[in-house]
Amino acid sequence: MTKMIAINAGSSSLKFKLFEMPNEEVLTAGLVERIGLDKGVFTILVNGEKVTEIIDIPDHAVAVKILLSKLTDLEIIQSLNEIEGIGHRVVHGGEKFNDSVFITEETLREIENLSELAPLHNPANIIGIKAFKEVLPNVNAVAVFDTAFHQTMPEQSFLYSLPYEYYENYGIRKYGFHGTSHKYVSERAAELLDRPIEELRLISCHLGNGASIAAIEGGKSIETSMGFTPLAGVAMGTRSGNIDPALIPFIMEKTGCSEIEVLDILNKKSGLLGISGLSSDLRDIEPAAEEGNDRARTALEVFASQIHKYIGSYAARMCGVDAIIFTAGIGENSSEVRSRVLHGLEFMGVYWNAELNQVRGKEAFISYPHSPVKVMIIPTNEEVMIARDVERIALHHRV
Amino acid sequence: MTKMIAINAGSSSLKFKLFEMPNEEVLTAGLVERIGLDKGVFTILVNGEKVTEIIDIPDHAVAVKILLSKLTDLEIIQSLNEIEGIGHRVVHGGEKFNDSVFITEETLREIENLSELAPLHNPANIIGIKAFKEVLPNVNAVAVFDTAFHQTMPEQSFLYSLPYEYYENYGIRKYGFHGTSHKYVSERAAELLDRPIEELRLISCHLGNGASIAAIEGGKSIETSMGFTPLAGVAMGTRSGNIDPALIPFIMEKTGCSEIEVLDILNKKSGLLGISGLSSDLRDIEPAAEEGNDRARTALEVFASQIHKYIGSYAARMCGVDAIIFTAGIGENSSEVRSRVLHGLEFMGVYWNAELNQVRGKEAFISYPHSPVKVMIIPTNEEVMIARDVERIALHHRV
Repeated sequence: MTKMIAINAGSSSLKFKLFEMPNEEVLTAGLVERIGLDKGVFTILVNGEKVTEIIDIPDHAVAVKILLSKLTDLEIIQSLNEIEGIGHRVVHGGEKFNDSVFITEETLREIENLSELAPLHNPANIIGIKAFKEVLPNVNAVAVFDTAFHQTMPEQSFLYSLPYEYYENYGIRKYGFHGTSHKYVSERAAELLDRPIEELRLISCHLGNGASIAAIEGGKSIETSMGFTPLAGVAMGTRSGNIDPALIPFIMEKTGCSEIEVLDILNKKSGLLGISGLSSDLRDIEPAAEEGNDRARTALEVFASQIHKYIGSYAARMCGVDAIIFTAGIGENSSEVRSRVLHGLEFMGVYWNAELNQVRGKEAFISYPHSPVKVMIIPTNEEVMIARDVERIALHHRV
Repeated sequence: MTKMIAINAGSSSLKFKLFEMPNEEVLTAGLVERIGLDKGVFTILVNGEKVTEIIDIPDHAVAVKILLSKLTDLEIIQSLNEIEGIGHRVVHGGEKFNDSVFITEETLREIENLSELAPLHNPANIIGIKAFKEVLPNVNAVAVFDTAFHQTMPEQSFLYSLPYEYYENYGIRKYGFHGTSHKYVSERAAELLDRPIEELRLISCHLGNGASIAAIEGGKSIETSMGFTPLAGVAMGTRSGNIDPALIPFIMEKTGCSEIEVLDILNKKSGLLGISGLSSDLRDIEPAAEEGNDRARTALEVFASQIHKYIGSYAARMCGVDAIIFTAGIGENSSEVRSRVLHGLEFMGVYWNAELNQVRGKEAFISYPHSPVKVMIIPTNEEVMIARDVERIALHHRV
């Protein structure tokens, strides 16, 4: 039995989950927030109960120290020596990383070099890696990339129809994100279907505040809706998804905004929020639509319709589909969205009903048993994938 | 019997086709090129033979005068009085025009106001309208819009997930183009299928140097791949189609180009040309791919794969499809592209074979007779649609 900690560091936050492996038992989990700001917040699960403390947390290294001392103080572990591996979520692995990687000075430098491709995310992930390195210098660490699972996409899927030298010189291509989640649910789907993943064609819909769809053939991602950045694909909470690229110069001219300001609007003021003018949160949009708010209803229709069309598109991409998977906040919980997304797919073999669809947040089949295409809800679990990769990779490097 | 002329004016060109209606007989057709440049070129069909003349053509009004005098000189018509209607192709009709319209001073002003939405096209179309007005002031004229057919799209299809006020204040929405072509082939498909168009779900693939796909339900466009401008959708000869919008600021930063220069690259140096580095013309790409040019093969794969995915997407949009239509240069002539686009669609009821697909430029079914989804080639004919609209609209305004 070994203990592994999975880390997801943001610019002012740090999420953690401590696993006992290989049995994948969660010993605790929690969140450090407002790092570097006044009134930091530390939250940890103790015997299934959330315990929250307001505490001064000047930087990520302090956050790590507080976290580790809590683990022993609360007797979740007896000694820090029990932690044998650390897994760090890293958003962008570029073309360099098609799998999780053992973190050395060299790989860390390579992750830093990729910051240009994910300026909002990689630097924060790197801060997390360095903070743990400072506090636990001798514990093996692994980086798990959001992009790695999609590196199996063939050129016809990842290449934009732009001048080819943009790909060669600037790395401009589709990378795709949410890879750890798409990988987890696709592997879990194969288990639940009791079929070898090698023979399955799956469409995975990760629908959270960010949303992406992936076509997974034989366990490999061959197409996904996000692109060079997580802005692309379907409409999301605040992100526009795909739009006519000619709109950027047009909006710049009309509003006097710079291209960076327009990009900010596309990332933060668009999507469900932009259409509804109400909220980026589907939990606000759904009841408003129900109560007759036209723009909320339109936001819901646009969101669901775009996912619905991606399913048709990816079924075509794989010449058919064996199962459609819903995961993440909206995918796991909104029967309304699932119902709109699945409506009218009988022509491609998708048979389900409203009663089966009344499920929230747990594994379930919502298709009829006789449906040629299965529809499944699978709560995602990126942390366990991180812990598994730490076990697979870090332990081989034990000194 | 009446005679109608269909006009498509560009900034330095003017295409024409003279019809006898209602029998839709083509009396002649031709093209004036290099208007306003040195060595203008006038080409006209005489008894099916192309006759070309190099001639000084300082402006569009002169082009019209030359054209009209040729019609009588060559005895195609006896007198200009025989021309009872003129139909002008106009690219952008905005939300104002959901049908072709009789041209008055007021409608012309409205078309001018829409130039902002199509700065490359509407002004040239307007020059053509004014030139004819100058030379034939008493002949009724009709404007036929590329966008009008798509005005039936519902909000969930035409609205971008952007701040809603961009739609209200700046008219930012999906308009769609090639409407006259999509309308023509969908109506013709209903005739060839011998079924009322009201009960058909059609996917129309207009694949030329510009390319767009439309989902046509009950004779009405409900979704199309082009957007606010004709840049959006699938990769085209030189156009990028959809890309991650975040790429525009990134390319600006990397290349030092302005947003207008980047837009120019997306319009003129991308698509098949950008990927292949070879040509925007599929007639160059196909043999190069055949001979082992990797980038030409990739360009072909990207192009076909994107259309293939749109077909899946639009089948889902209509909860199934009755027929898929190929039209325009590539759609009518490239069995290679059609074959790649149709490959593996059996899961949604598309059955065809390579032998049936060996057709160029003529109406044909390439699906098996028993295929639930029919696949058809229908050469487009935007000019006859223009002539029909002139007959329907202009003649009602006869003074």
